[in-house]
Amino acid sequence: MLDKAPAAQITNWLKSFAAALDKGDIDAAMDLFQDECYWRDLLTFTWNIKTMEGKTAIAAMLRATLGSAKPSGWSLTEEVSVNGDKVEGWFTFETAVAHGLGVVRLVDGRCHTLFTSMTDLAGFEERKGATRPLGVVHKADPDRETWSEARAREERDLGSTVQPYCLIIGGGQGGMALGARLKRLGVPTIIVEKNPKAGDSWRNRYRTLVLHDPVWYDHMPYMPFPEHWPVFTPKDQMGDWLEMYAKVMELNYWTSTTCTGASWDADKKAWTVELDRDGEKVVLQPKQLVFATGAYGPPRWIDLPGKDQFKGEIIHSSQYTAGDDFQGKKVAVIGAASSGHDVSVDLWESGADVTMIQRAPTTVVKSDTLMEMGFEIYSEAAVARGLTTEKADYLSASIPFATQAPIQKALYDRIRKRDADFYNRLSASGFAIDFGPDETGLMMKAYRTGSGYYIDVGASDLIIDGKVKVKSGVDIETLTPGGVRFTDGDERPFDVIILCTGYESMHETVAEIIDRETADSVGPCWGVGSGVRNDPGPWQGELRNMWKPTAHEALWFHGGNLALSRFYSKFLALQLKARMEGVETPVYQRPS
Amino acid sequence: MLDKAPAAQITNWLKSFAAALDKGDIDAAMDLFQDECYWRDLLTFTWNIKTMEGKTAIAAMLRATLGSAKPSGWSLTEEVSVNGDKVEGWFTFETAVAHGLGVVRLVDGRCHTLFTSMTDLAGFEERKGATRPLGVVHKADPDRETWSEARAREERDLGSTVQPYCLIIGGGQGGMALGARLKRLGVPTIIVEKNPKAGDSWRNRYRTLVLHDPVWYDHMPYMPFPEHWPVFTPKDQMGDWLEMYAKVMELNYWTSTTCTGASWDADKKAWTVELDRDGEKVVLQPKQLVFATGAYGPPRWIDLPGKDQFKGEIIHSSQYTAGDDFQGKKVAVIGAASSGHDVSVDLWESGADVTMIQRAPTTVVKSDTLMEMGFEIYSEAAVARGLTTEKADYLSASIPFATQAPIQKALYDRIRKRDADFYNRLSASGFAIDFGPDETGLMMKAYRTGSGYYIDVGASDLIIDGKVKVKSGVDIETLTPGGVRFTDGDERPFDVIILCTGYESMHETVAEIIDRETADSVGPCWGVGSGVRNDPGPWQGELRNMWKPTAHEALWFHGGNLALSRFYSKFLALQLKARMEGVETPVYQRPS
Repeated sequence: MLDKAPAAQITNWLKSFAAALDKGDIDAAMDLFQDECYWRDLLTFTWNIKTMEGKTAIAAMLRATLGSAKPSGWSLTEEVSVNGDKVEGWFTFETAVAHGLGVVRLVDGRCHTLFTSMTDLAGFEERKGATRPLGVVHKADPDRETWSEARAREERDLGSTVQPYCLIIGGGQGGMALGARLKRLGVPTIIVEKNPKAGDSWRNRYRTLVLHDPVWYDHMPYMPFPEHWPVFTPKDQMGDWLEMYAKVMELNYWTSTTCTGASWDADKKAWTVELDRDGEKVVLQPKQLVFATGAYGPPRWIDLPGKDQFKGEIIHSSQYTAGDDFQGKKVAVIGAASSGHDVSVDLWESGADVTMIQRAPTTVVKSDTLMEMGFEIYSEAAVARGLTTEKADYLSASIPFATQAPIQKALYDRIRKRDADFYNRLSASGFAIDFGPDETGLMMKAYRTGSGYYIDVGASDLIIDGKVKVKSGVDIETLTPGGVRFTDGDERPFDVIILCTGYESMHETVAEIIDRETADSVGPCWGVGSGVRNDPGPWQGELRNMWKPTAHEALWFHGGNLALSRFYSKFLALQLKARMEGVETPVYQRPS
Repeated sequence: MLDKAPAAQITNWLKSFAAALDKGDIDAAMDLFQDECYWRDLLTFTWNIKTMEGKTAIAAMLRATLGSAKPSGWSLTEEVSVNGDKVEGWFTFETAVAHGLGVVRLVDGRCHTLFTSMTDLAGFEERKGATRPLGVVHKADPDRETWSEARAREERDLGSTVQPYCLIIGGGQGGMALGARLKRLGVPTIIVEKNPKAGDSWRNRYRTLVLHDPVWYDHMPYMPFPEHWPVFTPKDQMGDWLEMYAKVMELNYWTSTTCTGASWDADKKAWTVELDRDGEKVVLQPKQLVFATGAYGPPRWIDLPGKDQFKGEIIHSSQYTAGDDFQGKKVAVIGAASSGHDVSVDLWESGADVTMIQRAPTTVVKSDTLMEMGFEIYSEAAVARGLTTEKADYLSASIPFATQAPIQKALYDRIRKRDADFYNRLSASGFAIDFGPDETGLMMKAYRTGSGYYIDVGASDLIIDGKVKVKSGVDIETLTPGGVRFTDGDERPFDVIILCTGYESMHETVAEIIDRETADSVGPCWGVGSGVRNDPGPWQGELRNMWKPTAHEALWFHGGNLALSRFYSKFLALQLKARMEGVETPVYQRPS
């Protein structure tokens, strides 16, 4: 089919594919795929977030789901584009219960990657634009309830006389994005947040923090940042924005509230959740429980030999807010990823004597370089040519994890060449650089383990210039009363040790709130099972346990950076809404 | 030139016009205009908001301004469109100091209306999109000031150790829109607001109020309402939105602050403004003083004969918040425009016995009808075809006031026909309807006097059904101890009289704060000098004193509904910025 125009290739493929599925002819459908092929589905066929790799997996999925999905109405929506040997087409379709959006990429006329995703549940579409509510009944009515009265009633009754359908633990950007989507879908939801104000999870972080990702990547759903917003949002500005967001989106957001326990009643199909709401004990019975307690779980404390004899202070980076207290002190920063670098800069700016203790090599990429080469689809230039953040999200999601490694490797080959001088100087300082075991760089590290990388916004120059010292390539033998002795015999004095050692998996929070058994039955969150250290196997080709059914009924995880929270909150919200409305949601390959 | 394609007509016209202006050949330029012609300029030639009507006025303006404006770079920006006998083209151009945007409409190849407006001052363009600030310096720096530290410093110093360049009296949507634009332009500004919280000017109004204009017409600058926002915003939701807006836009917004006096020092070219800031006396020395104290001025109290003997309560609609206090009482509502209708509905819903006393006929139009026929360019359908709110604003502004009357008359002819049955029933109730002295309807009343109309959102049915009684066509002879006696001898008992009699001109607020002499030297605000009662003459063809230089140096008025505040705040902000930066701003025909 190579001689055909790209548009005709896509049209013919979609027509043939639709016809095969209409007839339930899975063999005919399989003839339309390359031998190496991938189908990533977000809910439409699988009610799961799932990538089928290869024809066998795809055929098995179709056999299991085609009868219930009943796809139809496949229709091209955009101009077909060509990229190398791939022809790309965007389309919409319908299932028995939902509207769908998809992307197909053909090589030699056959499908290499197929992406299908649910945009709305039929009959429960979000009201916006032309279908937005009127806001008022244009008729005099003695029983009229105003907007503020209705809102006050909801805040008064929900969690008291009315049970929420869904409870979200954690009110950072993840909980808020999901809460906003559920609000728009009419799912009664309470978000509980331990801090006194929405946005405090950002405000409480160290003084000089700014987002490391650019503004086009960081929008919240429904309310994009305005056009004058800075490229990199400072953390307090982000905190204020989120506080505003909770209010404008009319979230039922309980501040100063901690979740002290939760248990599942399999007969009643409901949770019993115990809360401490600003000192008052409250028990709720939601049908669905979402952990949105951070991209990762509790702070990770590593074992430090000789810790008891150390006379100085040891804190975790999550407890670090400002360097003022450390002026003139000798500080060891253990860990050389993002927080290790940011904390080191903040300490140096405050006049501390900083040594970064690097336990494993780090992927470093200069912010400018990453912006220009890695964030091309999230940029002002992209927006200018019609590639909105929403469309960029779909584009990103349409590329299966399994095919991303070579793309990322090629990107980092270019980055290493471009910034060779920078990397040489950084290496010369004694700092250990890597680009992952397969040279695929930052993004793959983020997906696999969520650790081991730094987007350079100034720390690397401090290291190169020797202003922040680095101790790398050796282990800590023991803490001494006055500092650290390393396995190479080197002994250094420190007043303070700051652990920038990251966080545990989110399922450890489940152990804290529910119990160990439930946590273990669900297993770790995040990682794709790549085989890389700290990425739990086996291979899943998807982020483990995130935004989709887990091994435990009615127990969900939500999180990720701003971009992933924004995009996947949509699909978690659709899953919850469908369950509330009694829509059939047969999950293909639920974990057990 | 009739045989030429529309695009060629516009291209040729613009080329000839540019050539004539380049040569300073005003006669040649005038040959390019119809005998009936209009040129509306927002700042680019005139540093004023000015419509030149006819060739003589246009030629005079060009003779006065061409030397300083130095226009160049005329360039078509959009597809040319045809509407009846008119061919319309949009273009950009440059002046000696600014970038401009314009619209020209040709009839038979010659200009009927020309619109020119300033979009940015050259060298002082607003930073947004690709030129937005980075938000962080990517370099370690011991003297780093964070976003929140810089913001706290600004709030602490401005008005204390640092004088604001501009002071805005009034923090409703007008003051905020202007304040936001000045903030983006880097003009140090303080907004003073008498209420304790931003948004209270809406919250304090009567319980059931919703905006009468639809959402597409009501966006604030920089931060449009999200897509799910209701068509008609309830007043408390508007209040919350504005409170959020003041914070997100980082306005220096002083709540609980009243302006107790102001005087101009002509030598120092500065104001001395006395403020009561939450009980503390503060004196500021701004260079520019803007009155943004409401679309209109202080409440208008009318003279009621026999007022002293009336034993009941008399209040103005500005004091009315909720009907609860009036349950079971006999209430006279004096005035039959927007507030008269809204207050009547609220009273009836609260169980009061309401009589509306109509002193003059009212223009009534059903909300649905107005949305469909009058707000076509501000609608979801318009947005869908690319006519954004911003573009619709320019489109509206490009039509000179002098040419609007026949357009509006034709619209109201259609509206009267469509809703004939409604108007017949409303008339039959005894309510007096008009469409203005020249049958031009609501919008022209709004521009001319800002009074005498009602967008029906439910009150008219109450009147038709007799649930709200109407007394129309007779004067009040006197109040009696227990009610009102009319000139037709009819006497009715009332417990309460509510004056829905509107507001004085904004210049009365100047008299209160500065002095009577200054107020009188500036004269009334609003109105176009149409000759209609309450529209002060002579003919101006522009809204009097609004958003442009007044007879008093450094004294400005800002106001209008949300749409006018949004659009004209841009031009007022540019005038203030230019003065701050020392850009030459020769005003053509400043009032004296």
